[in-house]
Amino acid sequence: MRESLPKLFESFSSRLNLVSHTPRQDRGFFDGKIGEDYIKNYIRESAPVYEKYLKEKIRDAKQLGSLPAQLLTDFSEIAQKGKRVRGALVVLGYEAAGGLDHQEILEASLSIELIHSGLLVHDDIQDNDDIRRGVPTIHKRFEAKGYAKGLGQISKHYGISMAINAGISAYFLGMDKLMYSDFPSDRVVQAGRITTDYVNRVAHGQALDVSNLFVNNINQDELLNILKYKSAEYTGVLPLLVGATLAGEKRAKYLSYLVQYGLSLGWAFQIQDDLLGTFGEEAKLGKSVGIDLKEGKVTLLVLHLAKHGNKKQRDRLKQIFGNKHLKNSDVEDFKKMLKDVGSYDYVLNMGWDYVKKAEKYIPKITDDPKLSEIFRSLLYFMMQRAV
Amino acid sequence: MRESLPKLFESFSSRLNLVSHTPRQDRGFFDGKIGEDYIKNYIRESAPVYEKYLKEKIRDAKQLGSLPAQLLTDFSEIAQKGKRVRGALVVLGYEAAGGLDHQEILEASLSIELIHSGLLVHDDIQDNDDIRRGVPTIHKRFEAKGYAKGLGQISKHYGISMAINAGISAYFLGMDKLMYSDFPSDRVVQAGRITTDYVNRVAHGQALDVSNLFVNNINQDELLNILKYKSAEYTGVLPLLVGATLAGEKRAKYLSYLVQYGLSLGWAFQIQDDLLGTFGEEAKLGKSVGIDLKEGKVTLLVLHLAKHGNKKQRDRLKQIFGNKHLKNSDVEDFKKMLKDVGSYDYVLNMGWDYVKKAEKYIPKITDDPKLSEIFRSLLYFMMQRAV
Repeated sequence: MRESLPKLFESFSSRLNLVSHTPRQDRGFFDGKIGEDYIKNYIRESAPVYEKYLKEKIRDAKQLGSLPAQLLTDFSEIAQKGKRVRGALVVLGYEAAGGLDHQEILEASLSIELIHSGLLVHDDIQDNDDIRRGVPTIHKRFEAKGYAKGLGQISKHYGISMAINAGISAYFLGMDKLMYSDFPSDRVVQAGRITTDYVNRVAHGQALDVSNLFVNNINQDELLNILKYKSAEYTGVLPLLVGATLAGEKRAKYLSYLVQYGLSLGWAFQIQDDLLGTFGEEAKLGKSVGIDLKEGKVTLLVLHLAKHGNKKQRDRLKQIFGNKHLKNSDVEDFKKMLKDVGSYDYVLNMGWDYVKKAEKYIPKITDDPKLSEIFRSLLYFMMQRAV
Repeated sequence: MRESLPKLFESFSSRLNLVSHTPRQDRGFFDGKIGEDYIKNYIRESAPVYEKYLKEKIRDAKQLGSLPAQLLTDFSEIAQKGKRVRGALVVLGYEAAGGLDHQEILEASLSIELIHSGLLVHDDIQDNDDIRRGVPTIHKRFEAKGYAKGLGQISKHYGISMAINAGISAYFLGMDKLMYSDFPSDRVVQAGRITTDYVNRVAHGQALDVSNLFVNNINQDELLNILKYKSAEYTGVLPLLVGATLAGEKRAKYLSYLVQYGLSLGWAFQIQDDLLGTFGEEAKLGKSVGIDLKEGKVTLLVLHLAKHGNKKQRDRLKQIFGNKHLKNSDVEDFKKMLKDVGSYDYVLNMGWDYVKKAEKYIPKITDDPKLSEIFRSLLYFMMQRAV
């Protein structure tokens, strides 16, 4: 099963070389502080709105039974711990397009946050992850409840089943939050179309991702598609378009600038996510460092190392890639090789290339100096964030 | 784990006694032929529309990779084999409320069909079902593909993961089909609200259902809620309301009549489903007869038998309920006991009670003689259908 890897590495790496990656001297000139503050402010403002909504829905669920209420309570704990990058981008897209109803867009922005949390619940089942956002995943929680109820062996299946239902509920709560928003119906419908289009592609990206994890014989286009559809596009483009659409923006040209900016921002986000997955701090990350390596998930870092490492390094990589008994020292070796071979810098520079690419679109998106600075700083924050 | 059953049976059965169930002399006066024909006609008319839409989406998925295209292809095979009761009810609700754009409502009616098929994909994972609508379930198909790819033990998890993604895709395609329908935006948004409200409750009903299957210590209200939220309400009420809403109907009183009719129709549907699960023909059913019994799922039939059977019969039930090594002769014994004790007639009469209840609302829903007859005959078809 792992035999097909070296071939994959080679063909994919040659494609990676097409991406220019000159070292950046200018990345210190701006920083991500303003972008970070924008998201922090969004988290602060949206927190009570989110909490109120979830509490209402838990109350509704309670009328159906204590179990649905428990399921939504567990879900809402994880949901409220999100980074909320996507929700903040909905508000930013709305503001850039001239929207003025701040409270209403805060409400509507929770749509993508809910859907995103549902996707994570389903993602965690597929990736066998125990921890999400620093707390146990839904399937793990209900697996534990299963054991406590004396279900024994079938507790795992019980946990997965309950997590599947939590995700379904999250998707339809997310669509509900959008449908019930007070914007004009034609804008809501258009935002609904954008949401369903992109999230449907996330499902396909996730299908490819599962095969990346389990099968390891996907082709290079599929691997690029995973990152694009499962993350970059959906993280950056979808929320900005939804926000602008709810503000009434319809000009195809203007929306295309948001698409360009958002896609590059999403790529920067995804690249930093990959880097943090290996080089991040576990406590901040809310999940295990090196888990991609342990699970045998092909990442940009792994691809570069496999192509450019010497024989000894490549052999070592094969030893530890997908090794379920991975030790801390293995992860440290992996990190050292990535630094020595230049894989870390290479992938980091890819991210900065996207920052550069996205920056060019900002003047076309807004001429408000304050908003421009937020758009610019957010890009830097994507690359500089610790989680 | 099974110890709690007799107690549950008793408390629940006492509640069942509240439902009147006089034997029906009149059930032969009308029959379900006109209702059956209405659904058959809907299947015939919607088939090419459905096929065209799914083909388009498979083509879109192919741009992301061969795997997403394969996943949607497998899904669409199962999706197109549905009974399409819900889609037909969308059209009926639309016609009753005076809607005239037949082609457009056919398109929009596929929304609930897509979502429903997605729910079945996720349901089959939870219930460990191998067969759906006469063909292998999605998780079983991809489990087999996993083995073929040499994934060995993890093939089962691979199959479940892929089926989770197929379901996600189905939900957002379903919402997509509604969002892209050509009805006025305010109607589409309102139909979207109805859909998200009801499907969210299905997820909670399903959570309760899983516990019914695995835990067997849910209380009686939760058990009634399972049948109501997971099936009756969503099967009968949701589609009629969506149809009427897309026709522009907004009067709360009128919609409440549809709710009343739809709920009773949904109960009749669900009760017949329970009966068919034990007494149906496997070939027509598209799934194994007696699977609920084998899996230890508490049903109305099981509850009645546990309450009213004599000691010998109750002991025999305990022996075979939830028995993974269930033989055909066990199922035959179960069926005989249900007939002998009167559980079959009891549950059947419950269904006919709902038919009677629903009939009263028809004159308030429509005064068109042809439509009235369809509304009436559909109720009979729900109880007389073989699948």
